[in-house]
Amino acid sequence: MTHTELPRTLAPTERTRLRRMKEKASFERSDLEAILDAGFVCHLGVIVDGDPMVVPTVYGRDERNLYVHGSVASRSLVNAEGDDVDATICVTVTHVDGLVLARSVFEHGVNYRCAMIYGTPRRLVDDAEKTEGLRILTEHATPGQWDYARRPTRKELAATTVFALSLEEASVKIRTGAPDDGDSPDAALGLWAGTLPLTSRWGAPTADPALPSGITAPAHIVARAGTRQG
Amino acid sequence: MTHTELPRTLAPTERTRLRRMKEKASFERSDLEAILDAGFVCHLGVIVDGDPMVVPTVYGRDERNLYVHGSVASRSLVNAEGDDVDATICVTVTHVDGLVLARSVFEHGVNYRCAMIYGTPRRLVDDAEKTEGLRILTEHATPGQWDYARRPTRKELAATTVFALSLEEASVKIRTGAPDDGDSPDAALGLWAGTLPLTSRWGAPTADPALPSGITAPAHIVARAGTRQG
Repeated sequence: MTHTELPRTLAPTERTRLRRMKEKASFERSDLEAILDAGFVCHLGVIVDGDPMVVPTVYGRDERNLYVHGSVASRSLVNAEGDDVDATICVTVTHVDGLVLARSVFEHGVNYRCAMIYGTPRRLVDDAEKTEGLRILTEHATPGQWDYARRPTRKELAATTVFALSLEEASVKIRTGAPDDGDSPDAALGLWAGTLPLTSRWGAPTADPALPSGITAPAHIVARAGTRQG
Repeated sequence: MTHTELPRTLAPTERTRLRRMKEKASFERSDLEAILDAGFVCHLGVIVDGDPMVVPTVYGRDERNLYVHGSVASRSLVNAEGDDVDATICVTVTHVDGLVLARSVFEHGVNYRCAMIYGTPRRLVDDAEKTEGLRILTEHATPGQWDYARRPTRKELAATTVFALSLEEASVKIRTGAPDDGDSPDAALGLWAGTLPLTSRWGAPTADPALPSGITAPAHIVARAGTRQG
C-alpha cells in the first residue's frame, strides 16, 4: 500500500456527488476528520441475504483508513470458507447537535454533522496489523487506555475481527444555526423560533463493583469526566 | 389495515434470530418502544445501485409503525416513474450510554441500547395520512410543537416524503453495567475497571437572531432545557 497522502478535498464520486447537490455539503477533508474524531460509534451498513442491515460498532482512524470492529459485520464480509467477500459497505458517523425549531413545521429540522464513507473493507489478518488496528480503536475511544489495560493475547487477537476502510470516498454534511424561515412570510406569525441545543458529556467514572478497594481510576479517565463528547 | 395489537414479545425471524443468539438480546416490545421513544434520529439503511447506504433521518412512532422522513431514502424507495419500490430497509436507533473499561483491551466495550427494525416501508400518499405522519414525527421530536408551529400546507405536504414501517419485525440489544472480567485472572492485575457514563442533555433554547424582541420561547420548549435526552 502506498502512503501518499489523501487529497485534502473530498473528490466526488457518483454516490457522494448526489448528496453534494444538496445544501450543507462540505468538501473539506478536515471536516471529515473532525467529525470522525468527535465520536467513537458508527453505523455500519452491509447487505445480508440481499437486504440492508445497519449495525452500530466502534471505530477509530488514522490518516488513511477507518478501522471498524467487525463482530456482526463479518457475517456479510467473510464467507463460509473464511475468505473476504468483495462487498461495498457504508459507514456513517452522525452527531446530533440540536433541534431546529422554525415557525412552520415544514422548516423544522436538525442541526447535525454527518460523515459517510463508502468502500470495500479489508480485513486485518496478521497479528501485527490486528494489534495496531485494536490500538487505534482503543485509543480513539479512550485515549491513554492502550498503555493502561492489558493488551490482547494471540488467542484474543484470533477471536477479534477488525476491518480497515479507506477514507478516500467520503461525503460530509453539516447543518448549523438558526431556522431558515426568518425572512419568509411566516416571520409575521409572531411565533418563537430558534434552536434547542443537545450536548453529550462524560460523567464521573463508576468503579466495577468487583473492584477491590484502594484501586483508583487512572488520570486519563478521571480527566474526561464533565468534558464534552461529540 | 387491521388494528389488532402487535404481540408484546418480538417473534424472531431469520435475520433477527441471528442477532438474538448473542448475549444482551431483549425480546420485550416494551424495550423496543422505550428505545424508540428515547431518541428522534435513526440510521436508515437502503440499497442504492447495489450497495448499502446509511443515512441519518428523523423518525416517530405509533403503536404499530415507525414513521421516517424520507428525503434521501426516497432515491432508493421510489422509482423514476414515482412508484414505490418493493425494497426492504433496516432502521437502527442506538443510544450510547458509556464506555466499558475492562482490565483487558479484549473485554472493552460500550454500554448501549439498540433497536433494529426490518421491513418494506409504505410511502404515505394522501394528504390526511401524510399530515398525521408529520404530526407524529413532529411530536416525537418536540412534544407540543405541532400545536404551536404553523402546520403544513398542501404544497408543503406534496414536497414531503414520509414512510411508514411496521414495528412487527424488530430486534433489541442492550448492554448495561460493569465489565465482564471482574472474576477473570485479570482481576489480579490490580488495574482499575469500570464504566465511563455518557449522557446527552438539552441546553437552553437559542432564539433565531431574526426573531423580533419580545417573543419568548414557549413553555414546552423552555421546560426541556436541562433534561436528559436518550
